[in-house]
Amino acid sequence: MDYQAVLEEVAAHARPYVGQGQVADYIPALERVSADRFGIAVADIHGAVYGVGDWEVPFSVQSISKAFSLALVMAQSHGSQGGDGNHGAPGGNRAPGGPGTDDIWKRVGREPSGTPFNSLVQLEAENGIPRNPFINAGALVVTDRLQTLTGDASTSMLHFLREESGNPDLAFDQAVADSEAEHGDRNAALAHFMASFGNLENPVPSVIQHYFWQCSIEMSCRDLAVAGGFLARHGLRADGSRLLDAREAKRINAVMLTCGTYDAAGEFAYRVGLPAKSGVGGGIIAVIPGRCTLCVWSPGLDARGNSVAGAAALDHFTTLTGWSVF
Amino acid sequence: MDYQAVLEEVAAHARPYVGQGQVADYIPALERVSADRFGIAVADIHGAVYGVGDWEVPFSVQSISKAFSLALVMAQSHGSQGGDGNHGAPGGNRAPGGPGTDDIWKRVGREPSGTPFNSLVQLEAENGIPRNPFINAGALVVTDRLQTLTGDASTSMLHFLREESGNPDLAFDQAVADSEAEHGDRNAALAHFMASFGNLENPVPSVIQHYFWQCSIEMSCRDLAVAGGFLARHGLRADGSRLLDAREAKRINAVMLTCGTYDAAGEFAYRVGLPAKSGVGGGIIAVIPGRCTLCVWSPGLDARGNSVAGAAALDHFTTLTGWSVF
Amino acid sequence: MDYQAVLEEVAAHARPYVGQGQVADYIPALERVSADRFGIAVADIHGAVYGVGDWEVPFSVQSISKAFSLALVMAQSHGSQGGDGNHGAPGGNRAPGGPGTDDIWKRVGREPSGTPFNSLVQLEAENGIPRNPFINAGALVVTDRLQTLTGDASTSMLHFLREESGNPDLAFDQAVADSEAEHGDRNAALAHFMASFGNLENPVPSVIQHYFWQCSIEMSCRDLAVAGGFLARHGLRADGSRLLDAREAKRINAVMLTCGTYDAAGEFAYRVGLPAKSGVGGGIIAVIPGRCTLCVWSPGLDARGNSVAGAAALDHFTTLTGWSVF
Amino acid sequence: MDYQAVLEEVAAHARPYVGQGQVADYIPALERVSADRFGIAVADIHGAVYGVGDWEVPFSVQSISKAFSLALVMAQSHGSQGGDGNHGAPGGNRAPGGPGTDDIWKRVGREPSGTPFNSLVQLEAENGIPRNPFINAGALVVTDRLQTLTGDASTSMLHFLREESGNPDLAFDQAVADSEAEHGDRNAALAHFMASFGNLENPVPSVIQHYFWQCSIEMSCRDLAVAGGFLARHGLRADGSRLLDAREAKRINAVMLTCGTYDAAGEFAYRVGLPAKSGVGGGIIAVIPGRCTLCVWSPGLDARGNSVAGAAALDHFTTLTGWSVF
Repeated sequence: MDYQAVLEEVAAHARPYVGQGQVADYIPALERVSADRFGIAVADIHGAVYGVGDWEVPFSVQSISKAFSLALVMAQSHGSQGGDGNHGAPGGNRAPGGPGTDDIWKRVGREPSGTPFNSLVQLEAENGIPRNPFINAGALVVTDRLQTLTGDASTSMLHFLREESGNPDLAFDQAVADSEAEHGDRNAALAHFMASFGNLENPVPSVIQHYFWQCSIEMSCRDLAVAGGFLARHGLRADGSRLLDAREAKRINAVMLTCGTYDAAGEFAYRVGLPAKSGVGGGIIAVIPGRCTLCVWSPGLDARGNSVAGAAALDHFTTLTGWSVF
Repeated sequence: MDYQAVLEEVAAHARPYVGQGQVADYIPALERVSADRFGIAVADIHGAVYGVGDWEVPFSVQSISKAFSLALVMAQSHGSQGGDGNHGAPGGNRAPGGPGTDDIWKRVGREPSGTPFNSLVQLEAENGIPRNPFINAGALVVTDRLQTLTGDASTSMLHFLREESGNPDLAFDQAVADSEAEHGDRNAALAHFMASFGNLENPVPSVIQHYFWQCSIEMSCRDLAVAGGFLARHGLRADGSRLLDAREAKRINAVMLTCGTYDAAGEFAYRVGLPAKSGVGGGIIAVIPGRCTLCVWSPGLDARGNSVAGAAALDHFTTLTGWSVF
Repeated sequence: MDYQAVLEEVAAHARPYVGQGQVADYIPALERVSADRFGIAVADIHGAVYGVGDWEVPFSVQSISKAFSLALVMAQSHGSQGGDGNHGAPGGNRAPGGPGTDDIWKRVGREPSGTPFNSLVQLEAENGIPRNPFINAGALVVTDRLQTLTGDASTSMLHFLREESGNPDLAFDQAVADSEAEHGDRNAALAHFMASFGNLENPVPSVIQHYFWQCSIEMSCRDLAVAGGFLARHGLRADGSRLLDAREAKRINAVMLTCGTYDAAGEFAYRVGLPAKSGVGGGIIAVIPGRCTLCVWSPGLDARGNSVAGAAALDHFTTLTGWSVF
Repeated sequence: MDYQAVLEEVAAHARPYVGQGQVADYIPALERVSADRFGIAVADIHGAVYGVGDWEVPFSVQSISKAFSLALVMAQSHGSQGGDGNHGAPGGNRAPGGPGTDDIWKRVGREPSGTPFNSLVQLEAENGIPRNPFINAGALVVTDRLQTLTGDASTSMLHFLREESGNPDLAFDQAVADSEAEHGDRNAALAHFMASFGNLENPVPSVIQHYFWQCSIEMSCRDLAVAGGFLARHGLRADGSRLLDAREAKRINAVMLTCGTYDAAGEFAYRVGLPAKSGVGGGIIAVIPGRCTLCVWSPGLDARGNSVAGAAALDHFTTLTGWSVF
């Protein structure tokens, strides 16, 4: 596969979509980004990286960080079988998890959330257990868990991303984090609501702060495609060490496919057919297991918060390559 | 791959789960099935079929029929790009569909439905447009469309299944269809409700009747694995002719993965990682694109309506083979 | 109180509102009514009747019939204490009801329904028990019960209304009833849905038919004010015989106040402060216990289905007289 | 009316219910109250007060404070017509309110809230506008407004209650207020959620604090019956000065009847037929316009948060006296 040629054709195809949609404007720090940016990068499983357009320009990762925080919590919990206990071995005599067993899946579900309208309905009807780790409520629970496991959820993620991307300059964008906090009443409502059900381990202000910092990290398409390589390598990190076992990596991909693009996950699976996680900064990371990790960026968002040109680019990439999981 | 050996190991693994769960009891005709049945079959893309246990015993396909009715509607609508118009080409100057263009996707969505609790909520909030073609409301719309396209939705499906499975003895189970109709107030409510939004083309009683007949068809694991082969063959039928183009086949698989196992689709993707469609008769059909189609059957259902032993079997199949879409 | 003078002042006050709002147009038979009609009548508890404007012009009673069907079911059930058993005597040793005891309140609630949006949600979440007897679902249950008690729900109501109003010419409007049936998918959905929970005693088509016939009865403001006199007379009929005991009459008034004007009951209580039942034909019946029953009619409806000029007239009536229940 | 004799008979009737239900236990400070307390007091409109049982024992007013905060906001807003503008004069040329006009009714509704389940659903579906001023979300908005109007919402209410009850010893219960704050995640969630819709004027922590302090005020049945006298006197205060005009007092009574007893307002109206406001401290205040104000107290609550013995007492009071608003 000549990745560079494919990316160039994809970029040409996506060009007319660049500038379509709306740049996220709920905080001023995001609103300032120019709508006409477009970049795409591919990191294959052997470490080669290709890119076109603004693929080395940093942008705010926003919800893409949710895929990494989930991976870090799962990685911290080796020995756990991620809630499989729900299905139970017959007879129920399954041995309790050893040291490090984590039960994040008792505190957050794995099902798509339906509509945004439902987010609070479901929390209320389902006793403060968010539907999945990629809606805000679920990501707050994951961050809360990462905070407990590491003592500093946002810094531990930043360090991981620096190491994995090989870019030691990655940093929080303080202005974005502050701006999020200033407009953070809705996330505060979600966190307090879950706390009222006993589903947070750390104080609400601390959880929210780490959550906003994680979202504020700035990375380029290159950084994200490289840092997300472990999802295509069945859990192996860039240095060949194991972050997750193959089953765990597969499962994060499954959750990305069913829940990774907000309320459009079904649509995205139908159209693109790849596990993916999007952010309101305009980035989308996507995985072709066993082959490569992609990241595309263009700030204009559709009504459900996914990059318009980014989705068009990924759609065309799967058309050109014939690579989809289906 | 020695399919026969794999199936035997899978059956051994699933054995302790057989008899767990509840046999569907909402209609007497289903309730009579013995809980201790178990069968599994694999049809590879070259036409070879393997099976163990009760793999040649017919059972009520129930909701598995929904995957076939969707495929038949899509097949009748060649030339259509399945609602892609929603994403629009830039400038919006996309040519209108040619003859045969179908707009089933304007009448039914492609997103997971969230909880069963939501089914009527969402119909109400979303103007009578069901979330996806695999919840009952969505399947009624697809059946309604198939009725319009073919003049006889249930017979056209029966003929297709006979041809595709190579089993000319396939038939409706009149007792099951009658029993469904007798206990069909909820489906009647859904159909009238959608009719009140103008989302049915045919009279409610006719749509419901064809829907019940489709569900009542009796097939074995062998029949279903063979008949579903086109989903693994990127749209090619058993005789090599094309039912769907590759993109359409991929898309049905995507909808099966995100919506095919009732409210447990996220869980099923997480655990098994295959496109699948289950039925309350205890059958599950699953697809490994480019390789094979499986069908497993065991009547005991979990709380969400999926076969307990069937899910365990598919889980173990992917573990043994390492084949998952992720 | 010089009722005639008050009514004239009220009519003058309401004049500018006549023609505002929308005439119900969901069925052609209602749509044809001219928007500029206005009538109001008062029947005092001694039998005197006063009216102005189009107070003797018949119109479609529609949902006003719900107050009468509830009264007839309660009247048929003397000896019952209408679900008071829920509160229980201490010790729970309350004697079972005697002959005629009815338990309509086990099948329908007495709480306001919140938003129209909620109607199906609540039926689903609350096992097919409608919130109150004045939403459509609840009225279908009451009609179903009246059908069981009388053998002919709609005719028994027509006979009662003829006797009580002293107008032997009252009749069903066949065109309206047929038109409702033709556009009756939503009510059919509600009825089938309740049937699926076992909350209907009679076949769905029969219940719906009687319900539509009750709604189609044509009466004037005069007819309705006189026929509703028993609600102001603490349960005594026009001929002095007892239909309901004082407690029952009080309770129907309570349900009218909290649930009688669709989703605007709180607003209506706030503004007018009288028990009332409205219909989409533009009529509103209101009760001043111990004094009189009013009926006002003007076809233009507000967004919640209540007559705009009718509500303004009742508001002004309470302002002029100082009569409100609060 | 020999109030003392009536109250004694009422107390005897209610006796078997005392101790039934559950004492509120969501905060320790309330949990400590003995379940076997019972008191009832009546204050007639001429200033006479009667009582039996524990009628002079202070208890935590809790949500009963919501009726007073609403009254204080309306009193601060003379000249306002309480949202009547929604109904509009024909032509819409109604003059803007004069000085003091308040628009609390643009920020909170007047409709019953349906189920508790719905509280957050409705806030979400209705853009952060609570259904009515007596659910927690609505009371937070009213407190927020009172804070803006007075600069100190809780102290201004305390002063008013001291003056109106004639009891200068009324005070906040600091332990209760602190305990509420410690377990206040759900109210914090509601407040942040409304803030995210722009429906709070003051900082969330300040609004919550004043809200908890208002709820923590300790008063006896005597204090509350006397302090609530203005609702029976059509708005006149104990000293004969005017707090509210007659229309405003009527309207508070209407909201109490339709929304004052949590999700049981319809049931309470059906059974008792009086405007009332209950609190989880076990108190209920009720109004017979033009006659008297009652307060009853017994800590055992039914499933919806209303005093079991208190409701039984009010029910019997209306039966004995024949006084209901219907």
